[in-house]
Amino acid sequence: MSKIQNIGVLTSGGDAPGMNAAIRAVVRGSLYYKLKVTGILRGYDGLINADFMPMDGKSVANIIQRGGTILKTARCDDFRTVEGRAKAYQNLVDNGIDALVVIGGDGTFTGADIFSQEYDFPIIGLPGTIDNDLEGTDLTIGYDTAINTVVNAVDKIRDTAESHDRLFIVEVMGRDSGLIALRSGIGVGAEAILIPEAKTTVSDLVYRIEHGRKDKASKIIVVAEGDEAGGAYNVGETLKKKFPHHDIRVSVLGHIQRGGKPSCMDRVLASRLGVAAVEGLLEGKSKVMVGQINKEIVFTPFAKAIKHIDAAQITPGWLRLAEILSL
Amino acid sequence: MSKIQNIGVLTSGGDAPGMNAAIRAVVRGSLYYKLKVTGILRGYDGLINADFMPMDGKSVANIIQRGGTILKTARCDDFRTVEGRAKAYQNLVDNGIDALVVIGGDGTFTGADIFSQEYDFPIIGLPGTIDNDLEGTDLTIGYDTAINTVVNAVDKIRDTAESHDRLFIVEVMGRDSGLIALRSGIGVGAEAILIPEAKTTVSDLVYRIEHGRKDKASKIIVVAEGDEAGGAYNVGETLKKKFPHHDIRVSVLGHIQRGGKPSCMDRVLASRLGVAAVEGLLEGKSKVMVGQINKEIVFTPFAKAIKHIDAAQITPGWLRLAEILSL
Amino acid sequence: MSKIQNIGVLTSGGDAPGMNAAIRAVVRGSLYYKLKVTGILRGYDGLINADFMPMDGKSVANIIQRGGTILKTARCDDFRTVEGRAKAYQNLVDNGIDALVVIGGDGTFTGADIFSQEYDFPIIGLPGTIDNDLEGTDLTIGYDTAINTVVNAVDKIRDTAESHDRLFIVEVMGRDSGLIALRSGIGVGAEAILIPEAKTTVSDLVYRIEHGRKDKASKIIVVAEGDEAGGAYNVGETLKKKFPHHDIRVSVLGHIQRGGKPSCMDRVLASRLGVAAVEGLLEGKSKVMVGQINKEIVFTPFAKAIKHIDAAQITPGWLRLAEILSL
Amino acid sequence: MSKIQNIGVLTSGGDAPGMNAAIRAVVRGSLYYKLKVTGILRGYDGLINADFMPMDGKSVANIIQRGGTILKTARCDDFRTVEGRAKAYQNLVDNGIDALVVIGGDGTFTGADIFSQEYDFPIIGLPGTIDNDLEGTDLTIGYDTAINTVVNAVDKIRDTAESHDRLFIVEVMGRDSGLIALRSGIGVGAEAILIPEAKTTVSDLVYRIEHGRKDKASKIIVVAEGDEAGGAYNVGETLKKKFPHHDIRVSVLGHIQRGGKPSCMDRVLASRLGVAAVEGLLEGKSKVMVGQINKEIVFTPFAKAIKHIDAAQITPGWLRLAEILSL
Repeated sequence: MSKIQNIGVLTSGGDAPGMNAAIRAVVRGSLYYKLKVTGILRGYDGLINADFMPMDGKSVANIIQRGGTILKTARCDDFRTVEGRAKAYQNLVDNGIDALVVIGGDGTFTGADIFSQEYDFPIIGLPGTIDNDLEGTDLTIGYDTAINTVVNAVDKIRDTAESHDRLFIVEVMGRDSGLIALRSGIGVGAEAILIPEAKTTVSDLVYRIEHGRKDKASKIIVVAEGDEAGGAYNVGETLKKKFPHHDIRVSVLGHIQRGGKPSCMDRVLASRLGVAAVEGLLEGKSKVMVGQINKEIVFTPFAKAIKHIDAAQITPGWLRLAEILSL
Repeated sequence: MSKIQNIGVLTSGGDAPGMNAAIRAVVRGSLYYKLKVTGILRGYDGLINADFMPMDGKSVANIIQRGGTILKTARCDDFRTVEGRAKAYQNLVDNGIDALVVIGGDGTFTGADIFSQEYDFPIIGLPGTIDNDLEGTDLTIGYDTAINTVVNAVDKIRDTAESHDRLFIVEVMGRDSGLIALRSGIGVGAEAILIPEAKTTVSDLVYRIEHGRKDKASKIIVVAEGDEAGGAYNVGETLKKKFPHHDIRVSVLGHIQRGGKPSCMDRVLASRLGVAAVEGLLEGKSKVMVGQINKEIVFTPFAKAIKHIDAAQITPGWLRLAEILSL
Repeated sequence: MSKIQNIGVLTSGGDAPGMNAAIRAVVRGSLYYKLKVTGILRGYDGLINADFMPMDGKSVANIIQRGGTILKTARCDDFRTVEGRAKAYQNLVDNGIDALVVIGGDGTFTGADIFSQEYDFPIIGLPGTIDNDLEGTDLTIGYDTAINTVVNAVDKIRDTAESHDRLFIVEVMGRDSGLIALRSGIGVGAEAILIPEAKTTVSDLVYRIEHGRKDKASKIIVVAEGDEAGGAYNVGETLKKKFPHHDIRVSVLGHIQRGGKPSCMDRVLASRLGVAAVEGLLEGKSKVMVGQINKEIVFTPFAKAIKHIDAAQITPGWLRLAEILSL
Repeated sequence: MSKIQNIGVLTSGGDAPGMNAAIRAVVRGSLYYKLKVTGILRGYDGLINADFMPMDGKSVANIIQRGGTILKTARCDDFRTVEGRAKAYQNLVDNGIDALVVIGGDGTFTGADIFSQEYDFPIIGLPGTIDNDLEGTDLTIGYDTAINTVVNAVDKIRDTAESHDRLFIVEVMGRDSGLIALRSGIGVGAEAILIPEAKTTVSDLVYRIEHGRKDKASKIIVVAEGDEAGGAYNVGETLKKKFPHHDIRVSVLGHIQRGGKPSCMDRVLASRLGVAAVEGLLEGKSKVMVGQINKEIVFTPFAKAIKHIDAAQITPGWLRLAEILSL
């Protein structure tokens, strides 16, 4: 393996708070090891269209606190084609880029894995997604910020719920995973949490509302968007029929969960993983995601990282905790 | 008129940040003038059911910063009936309450006006609503906090919009009034603002998107929920058809707009108006709302206050400003 | 007067949240009227050193929500000299800049006034300072954000004060003016507010602590940095001697008060005034600050604007309000 | 050992965000196991003065999001005496309280350890302190919120630093430990971090300022209050002498670091540990602190928990990371 001299960095998939902190760490980590760094715009799309820009220490000044990604992100169907990847490889060769750091989620790593194998190209991935649904890291970059955003929003909703003795059904992000709902549900003091990984039937919910503390007039139920009960609106309709005298409202938090200034934890995680990715490349690692497990840096093959966490293992304890805390 | 000795205070209608600051000011203002104060729970409902509690300086300690209302609020159909109001009056007499401060919006004041006339009972109203749609005050208590909540939420959405070059349609509260949309739309740097008071057709919007700056890939359009175009989802559908290659998303901010810690401005306004309401009652005023116009305390008859602000007068300037600023 | 074709814009003095929103409005307002706009870096320093950059709509994209100033700001002693101003004028002529918008406070306007008279150069000022101490506008850009920052910080301190039954003395900014202290003091529910404009002796304070509500264990006293009592530390020392058994702490909020995302109100004010400044220049106005009084745009000669508000007029009402509310 | 029937809960030492979430979890966890719960006011002081109140599910409603502690906290010298502890024990017996959960830091646990041994009384501790300086848990309750508070405050300061090209020295809490400084320093993108555990001489600092990137005009240096260099003001004085032409400012963040709404992470941690403490008592555990290490619940003897973390082990990696990231 020839020595790496120019690292390309890109963000791909849904944006997540802390991506900028990760870019900054990759850039400055590279500078520390006397490497060149090239920013690639709009993910794999910029790779195919050679949308490149050289980066230095100043390029990433004053961005650690910003949401979104200065390198932008996009979906890119072309990268799923042999031709697209061929163009991407040619662009990398033409521009002297000899290694990649890709920041994103499972879709990002799937593409990276194929490309890296096809062209024997060194790539390390950073887990940048609010969903926290990757193997190989305790936390993904953006998750901590997202659950804080949910908690701050639901705190506001609780003000209204308390004032009106209302029951609120709040839908949070998580199409395939209830991890945002689980943690933020505990954090807001939810009376119930509905997630795809657990079969909480609406009749369970009805039972709990009927048998819960009588002096508790306001309630918050947190629903993950992917829950089989069909989203907050469906749950709302069912409960309104069962409890016609309750004042029941639905709120879908939506896209605010992706943005905002990253939390300290997300900045620190992104900073640490960004430097570790550069060091991993220099040590000859490739086709792996760098994560943090039990406080240690861990490299996990892409193929394993993209397997969704088996939430079934961790779920029961959290749901039981939520139930105890709602007494 | 006999001298007032015991002021009842209640909150009614939708809750608004700053209501607690207003309650605190009514309570402490009353104590300053050696009056008793009685808290009435759940608005007119508590009046009819004699749900009263004596309040002192400590009752309102450490609440100035809290959203919602410690006195709770509710809709009350019974207060629209002669019988309901008769019970309410009897409860006031039985408990020695000889004046009322009611904190709320137009519905609250309509009820207060009828009751005050029927029983010649001294009542002063405080404008507590996020909508800012009352005559007789430059600002209602809660409006400033609500527009800050919108601005903070849309700032997060803009992070995502910028990262993905997306167009976002954001729906904010305001069933009958575009005032939240107008100010917050300027505040977030919206490319367009759709409000019920102005006939912005969707074709205007299409024109502006087609002829706007070509290097501006992300856009925010703020829509008031009462707009004739039919809410953010409708606008979204229309634009998606017109611009099939744009990445267009819709976000309805919803109930977070009612809650949260009040802004400094709302706390100061609520504090000032709460004391002014007590002083107004002591000066023999009744059937009026106390507001602030051009920095001065002003009392406006309920009948006039509940006429919605004629937004037609103020709208064109703000819409033109929004247009200039989107260049 | 020849027609204006190229407006220079600069920020000067202490930075204030909303300055970026003001720059954006000047730039886009100029574009709307088909004018060129030139950004001048680091205030008058950049004027003397010809540190200029052309600006377009994109230059000010995505900055409305950012604290600080993208044009930077600096003190500049040279601009107080005849030579300095001569160089500045020559640079303006050489670069075809034929009018200026200066965003800052009294020092900024003093310099602008002299320069404008010396060279008959069109200049309009925008009130950008957290101190709110200028004649000719109800609010300066940055003030609303600053008092919200104070209120949010003191809310946190109150958590600790309540938990420990402590008395906190909190120092806020305002070397010559107690306006930040007055409003934020009401906003945090302070037990007392000490400002330079009012002779609250420490013995008054001692009296109030001794005779205040006995069941109120925690207290917040807000002190403006310019107060004659000598700042929070001095007040703290005096009170500790008088009340050796009280748990008394001092906190100086410091520079956090200047930064942060501008509030909605500050963004709207800055946006409106920025466009009005451009329009004022086009109408031939000069040597004036543009402000907002009772909701109307008002132009005030620099010489008058920089006279500090006579806080003596407005102070007694607010201090009395604070006293009532602390009962 | 007789079966536990009534758990007393108290908070002691400096308050920390998340203490209320911990109290809530202890109360509701006790109710889940059909136990009584008694709130003890002002820490060991309330224990000695029998300042008790029975608690139920409603006592802790709507507090999960509040800073401070509803049970209040205080220093208590009497609990260090044999007589004081004897009174405390008698009060517990008289009121039928047969186990304790104490929430606090090393001082709290030291007292608990002595008392528990003297009277063979079941006590479990919860780590409630912003300092994160306890053995036996990866994170203490309050630490995550505190570092977010620091990061949000320094983000504001950076706005000013950037606008003025200033160097800021920011002092954060941590009398004996640099853990707040280390994490928040990375989080704010500090150019240097000074902590008691590392001998960063001021001449190192001077060297780095002199040899750092020339195009980086603004800088943030984070100093832990316990650093041997003597706090931010001393460092400021030294640097001002060395760099008379730099614009150098000092800001001491102070007490805001203790307050505020807890972060989601702190709420979840407090919730989990609170229930675990109740379950630990029921399983016969005592004289231990319950913590979370590598995602697992762990019980650590008080004597071990109060040994401060050996920061020497973890420090070099973080300091090196900070250095890399400042390039």
